[in-house]
Amino acid sequence: MLGIFDSGIGGLTVVRELLKRHPEQSFIYLGDTARVPYGNKSREVVKQYAFEEVTFLRSKSVTDIIIACNTTSSVVEEIRGAFPDIRFFDVITPAAEAVIELNSKKIGVIGTRATIASGVYNKAIRAHGDPEIISIACPLFVPLVEEGWINKPETKKIVRRYLAPLKQKQIDALILGCTHYPLLQKVIRDSLQRRVKIIDSPSALLDQLEKTAPKIFRDDQQINHQQYFLTDTSPHTVSIASRWLGKSISVEKVDL
Amino acid sequence: MLGIFDSGIGGLTVVRELLKRHPEQSFIYLGDTARVPYGNKSREVVKQYAFEEVTFLRSKSVTDIIIACNTTSSVVEEIRGAFPDIRFFDVITPAAEAVIELNSKKIGVIGTRATIASGVYNKAIRAHGDPEIISIACPLFVPLVEEGWINKPETKKIVRRYLAPLKQKQIDALILGCTHYPLLQKVIRDSLQRRVKIIDSPSALLDQLEKTAPKIFRDDQQINHQQYFLTDTSPHTVSIASRWLGKSISVEKVDL
Repeated sequence: MLGIFDSGIGGLTVVRELLKRHPEQSFIYLGDTARVPYGNKSREVVKQYAFEEVTFLRSKSVTDIIIACNTTSSVVEEIRGAFPDIRFFDVITPAAEAVIELNSKKIGVIGTRATIASGVYNKAIRAHGDPEIISIACPLFVPLVEEGWINKPETKKIVRRYLAPLKQKQIDALILGCTHYPLLQKVIRDSLQRRVKIIDSPSALLDQLEKTAPKIFRDDQQINHQQYFLTDTSPHTVSIASRWLGKSISVEKVDL
Repeated sequence: MLGIFDSGIGGLTVVRELLKRHPEQSFIYLGDTARVPYGNKSREVVKQYAFEEVTFLRSKSVTDIIIACNTTSSVVEEIRGAFPDIRFFDVITPAAEAVIELNSKKIGVIGTRATIASGVYNKAIRAHGDPEIISIACPLFVPLVEEGWINKPETKKIVRRYLAPLKQKQIDALILGCTHYPLLQKVIRDSLQRRVKIIDSPSALLDQLEKTAPKIFRDDQQINHQQYFLTDTSPHTVSIASRWLGKSISVEKVDL
């Protein structure tokens, strides 16, 4: 069984991409909506929460896990070490490899404060090449997305302010280093030169999974078993989740 | 000993007001920065976290507790019931009483989604009178304050958008129903008619304490014992906390 977890509902952009390509895929989603967001938390706390999440998914017989959260993906090595029986996929490696394939000379990376401070993208990109990398933390993007302010003029202004240094540096490619950001993709695109290639982690991850671990998608023993667990199930959160997925979902509350 | 707790560092606006009036006051502050913000969480989760926080403060010999968080103040009755040996002061009652004293006919209330949905201010105000009340949730104010965007043009635009219905309704008075909001007071003032009276909870609370429980301020056994505990101590949080208080503080990390 495939497990997917995130600090909240941002990881549903991965579910959305997964269901677009494999509508019958079985999976268990876990979102830590009670403690969201992780983006300003310390590495130590993020690690502790991740351990609790993996422990829960393992109790549900999950064998493959997608860490659908960039902040948590930055501690993937520690998680792998603690759970050797589970195969983990993070959202950072595929995006870093995708940007390298584009042969970009100047790469922009945007994410939460925790993701940017961890330097994971720089490390993942530098493992394959030596382009110039400009990283910027954009802490207001997640609250804007969670408030549903996707197309508001205020959102456009804020996006433009955060991305101004990337525009000025004339980057070739931009990694959206947070699973919430694909929902702002249009506004982000409009704030940069048209030729900038944008890499969003859900697509890069699914491309990589289909290439390297196609067996995940042939889980035909349990057909269309799709379950959503959240640590807090306020009506606002559930309604936003359904809106993003384009269908109404039922969620179960879980204490970690 | 006096305890003060909040979902994060927003409650430091209460500490700031306290120290302005009583610089030598002893207290223990607890901020749940690992799980902040509470504003979009359900009542059930907020209650559970509050119980953990009070339990911690009680273990530190605290006898009086200020709940320096509007979201948590909305569950004060349940907390009182569970800890009868402790005296609790919330930030809602004093602000509601202060607005009634102004004899306002049309009152605006702004706060997080959880505070507004709970209807606590309406209930507290209606206990004393029957003015018109217009409540608005402003979920982006806390992230803007925590990002330090106090005076940015984008912040002004966002504040103006949220407060437009209050301006149109020509309110007489406005309650800042979130301990973060005093930091936006100037921008909020500029977004409304000049005659609107603004009530911020830290001042209203201190006014009330000085009137009804002055003994709290005569804790001369332990002089100037001021301790800060946070559930997560990322450098960004600690630096923002010091900036708000106008002095560098040392914090201890605690697991709840």
